[in-house]
Amino acid sequence: MGPLEFPTTAGKIADLFNATLLGDPNVPVEGLNSVQKASRGSLCFLDEKKAAKFLNSCRLGAVVLTKKEFIRDDLPLTYIILEEPKLAFAQLAKSFLPKNRWIGISQKAEIHPSAQVDLSAHIGPFAVICEGAKIGADTIIYPQAYIGPGVHVGAGCEIHPNVVLLALVHLGNYVKVFSGSVLGSEGFGLIEGASGHVEMPQVGTVVVEDNVRIGAHCTIDRGTFGETRIGQGSKLDAHVHVGHNCQIGKNSILCAQVGLAGSATLEEGVVLAGQVGVGDHITIGKGARVGGQTGVTTNLKGGETYFSTPVMPIRQALRSHHFVKALPEIVDRIKLLEKEIHGKKHS
Amino acid sequence: MGPLEFPTTAGKIADLFNATLLGDPNVPVEGLNSVQKASRGSLCFLDEKKAAKFLNSCRLGAVVLTKKEFIRDDLPLTYIILEEPKLAFAQLAKSFLPKNRWIGISQKAEIHPSAQVDLSAHIGPFAVICEGAKIGADTIIYPQAYIGPGVHVGAGCEIHPNVVLLALVHLGNYVKVFSGSVLGSEGFGLIEGASGHVEMPQVGTVVVEDNVRIGAHCTIDRGTFGETRIGQGSKLDAHVHVGHNCQIGKNSILCAQVGLAGSATLEEGVVLAGQVGVGDHITIGKGARVGGQTGVTTNLKGGETYFSTPVMPIRQALRSHHFVKALPEIVDRIKLLEKEIHGKKHS
Amino acid sequence: MGPLEFPTTAGKIADLFNATLLGDPNVPVEGLNSVQKASRGSLCFLDEKKAAKFLNSCRLGAVVLTKKEFIRDDLPLTYIILEEPKLAFAQLAKSFLPKNRWIGISQKAEIHPSAQVDLSAHIGPFAVICEGAKIGADTIIYPQAYIGPGVHVGAGCEIHPNVVLLALVHLGNYVKVFSGSVLGSEGFGLIEGASGHVEMPQVGTVVVEDNVRIGAHCTIDRGTFGETRIGQGSKLDAHVHVGHNCQIGKNSILCAQVGLAGSATLEEGVVLAGQVGVGDHITIGKGARVGGQTGVTTNLKGGETYFSTPVMPIRQALRSHHFVKALPEIVDRIKLLEKEIHGKKHS
Repeated sequence: MGPLEFPTTAGKIADLFNATLLGDPNVPVEGLNSVQKASRGSLCFLDEKKAAKFLNSCRLGAVVLTKKEFIRDDLPLTYIILEEPKLAFAQLAKSFLPKNRWIGISQKAEIHPSAQVDLSAHIGPFAVICEGAKIGADTIIYPQAYIGPGVHVGAGCEIHPNVVLLALVHLGNYVKVFSGSVLGSEGFGLIEGASGHVEMPQVGTVVVEDNVRIGAHCTIDRGTFGETRIGQGSKLDAHVHVGHNCQIGKNSILCAQVGLAGSATLEEGVVLAGQVGVGDHITIGKGARVGGQTGVTTNLKGGETYFSTPVMPIRQALRSHHFVKALPEIVDRIKLLEKEIHGKKHS
Repeated sequence: MGPLEFPTTAGKIADLFNATLLGDPNVPVEGLNSVQKASRGSLCFLDEKKAAKFLNSCRLGAVVLTKKEFIRDDLPLTYIILEEPKLAFAQLAKSFLPKNRWIGISQKAEIHPSAQVDLSAHIGPFAVICEGAKIGADTIIYPQAYIGPGVHVGAGCEIHPNVVLLALVHLGNYVKVFSGSVLGSEGFGLIEGASGHVEMPQVGTVVVEDNVRIGAHCTIDRGTFGETRIGQGSKLDAHVHVGHNCQIGKNSILCAQVGLAGSATLEEGVVLAGQVGVGDHITIGKGARVGGQTGVTTNLKGGETYFSTPVMPIRQALRSHHFVKALPEIVDRIKLLEKEIHGKKHS
Repeated sequence: MGPLEFPTTAGKIADLFNATLLGDPNVPVEGLNSVQKASRGSLCFLDEKKAAKFLNSCRLGAVVLTKKEFIRDDLPLTYIILEEPKLAFAQLAKSFLPKNRWIGISQKAEIHPSAQVDLSAHIGPFAVICEGAKIGADTIIYPQAYIGPGVHVGAGCEIHPNVVLLALVHLGNYVKVFSGSVLGSEGFGLIEGASGHVEMPQVGTVVVEDNVRIGAHCTIDRGTFGETRIGQGSKLDAHVHVGHNCQIGKNSILCAQVGLAGSATLEEGVVLAGQVGVGDHITIGKGARVGGQTGVTTNLKGGETYFSTPVMPIRQALRSHHFVKALPEIVDRIKLLEKEIHGKKHS
């Protein structure tokens, strides 16, 4: 679906999805909002039972993408009936994104003559494209980004201002890298020498597969040998650190400030909440989910949810937390028992 | 108070504050130091009883801003008597800051013709000012900063090298943003689709009110709809992450490496120590203080101090910590009781 | 040892180290790999007993740097016998590093006429070298780096793309600073005033001694007065925060996402694992090692290993963790005792 031209009408949106419309097809759609705050001219969505109450605060003239079951005959809004209203909303929302895009190839970029830049790509001022780099079709390199020697950026990528892609990093298609992220920095490999530590040179690379999203201020170290790899469709939030030779499976989700030490492996569909730390050479199985701030120091089987340091299955973790909070009372109970048995006193 | 010209004398400083001076008004003031290390020509301050002992190591010729009660007749230094010596010192210290300022508008900046830059603003080389951006009076945009389309930067702001302000971000007056920080990056909103996760477009903005300080390497995500807002006078240290739609009240303090997930709310005057994590949609009440590394997964009432994961009022947390450390002995006591009652053995 | 020209042969490498060679000296060496994955043309190393089994998967034609004791007569590879095979490998590996270096002084850098740049230094496009800065021999300033007023960068340093060195920061020789790091930003010193917090101006500096390595996205704040100092040979991984006036001893190791609050002191050879937090004014003694995510809120004696929050010697921490996980069973045991004594029931 291409971008829609706004302002439009409820009827045109319904047509786009071949969807049934209830209400006025001519009501205008000029902006987006949440269902709680939608007013005349706003498009919003409703896809969960628990959010249905918010319809009450939706103003007249709002247009609601929703499932059939949530329609309220007593509220005269305009409804467009869809199976997946949130997904449809997300598609439409793209047309409302702030016009942040850089267009064309700036004369003020520094582009090495040996670099291969697709004619449809865009490059902002003060960007640097080094020797032998390749930039794919429709890709946008924003101002002040650094694309190192031999780097490969696929088609349809967005490389935001101040991103640094160091030598030989390889990005697939439709990869987004947000501002400040650094891919391909040297991993942290030290060898104890006679007069202090010596750094092991890091001669590997970073491979980022298609449709990956890398948030602002992430650091992804190159492999010592071989690759550090971010699997297709994985999404990283801000301030995530991925050590050398980590392997992140497809469709994994890493929330803000997560850190993976060297050679950690996440299988497919792993979810790590904010500030989780994963030790070196640890493997986390397919579909495992790990709660915020957990310190993962042992391998974890897939399919389960974990939490806490020391890491435990979440039910056990929550029970342990309950008892940690209750420790003063637990100790009181022990004191009472001791007293009852032999009058002995403990602090 | 305008900047003072240095070197100056103790007498001139006393005049500036209409303050009483004890000692030699002609002693020169050429630099700043702590009271422990102040020597001839140094200005220092003393404002706490526990620091009073440091006067002993203060050298002859030093000038001390202090309260009346701390003056020592046996130490022949020059004293300037003030109610708030530390605050006065901070005001004077500004004149000693390293000359780091960029002056004038560089020919090597890229400024879109539609941008409105105040004639008194300063813009360094390789800075990019995009379409429709506004830069207020006396504001300094340091080299290599990126000011996106439609961004508004108020008066008297400092935008340090390599800062990225993305489309439509709005900064009030006297806002400082330190190097590497990224404001307005897309929030982390994912929708599970048939073939992996789809990103919810983020069409909101970021609003930063007057007198806010944002440390190096912070990331402040734009709202999904509506605003992410940093209240007036709030101070953020380095590496702080603020998720989409967070609302930070006035005069809050966020120490280094704090992370707030989406839609968290801090009321006025909240203090979060280093590495604290706050879950999504959590509210922390007015004036609450939260100790380092705490994981906040429930709403917290204002006015109290909290600590630990799971989060507890600090007294309870410290008691629990005490007992966590003592667990081996506690289990020994249980074993003893078991033995005394029925000789039963547990590991 | 200068860089080797590749491809070379096993014999030439043995000659370089005056080492004994077993096998074919004419076997070519074209690349590097781990011992598990080495094939014909690859150089690898083996220096630990536990890795010796990997020799089985090493392909014919591989060249192995190793100690005498690990040689396998039944595996017809080419062996070069060395005392420190890993160290030798690291030296050789430098010749294989991706050609990431910027050569020469770009016409598109902005260099203040008063800056002193050694004739053998390299400076990339869109770098800014401010008033009074000094750049030593053979140092590389990559594109888009910012070298503030009065900054001193010694000889043989690497300052990667997008690094920011603010006013008066002083770097010794052979210092590497990876992309995005910010040295000399203002520390987080706040004074409570009548109408909100006022920032204490930070007039000190940052001193980085020889052979220090600072990873991507670190922030090292300048001293309030005096210096923040990183001792000789210390190595910092990515996302490390060092507060104002911290003193880091020689040969210390700080892993990713570590945070030090203001005025923390690490003596010589301290090792902090990932995500450790250290409180303000804390001292950690010589050679102490601290496990991942530990929150250090008290001074720690040198020579020991610590872990957990609250921080404990590691043995005690692991025992406490064991019992925290077992708390539900421990409480069951107390319930049983209570029942046996007086039939009383607790939840």
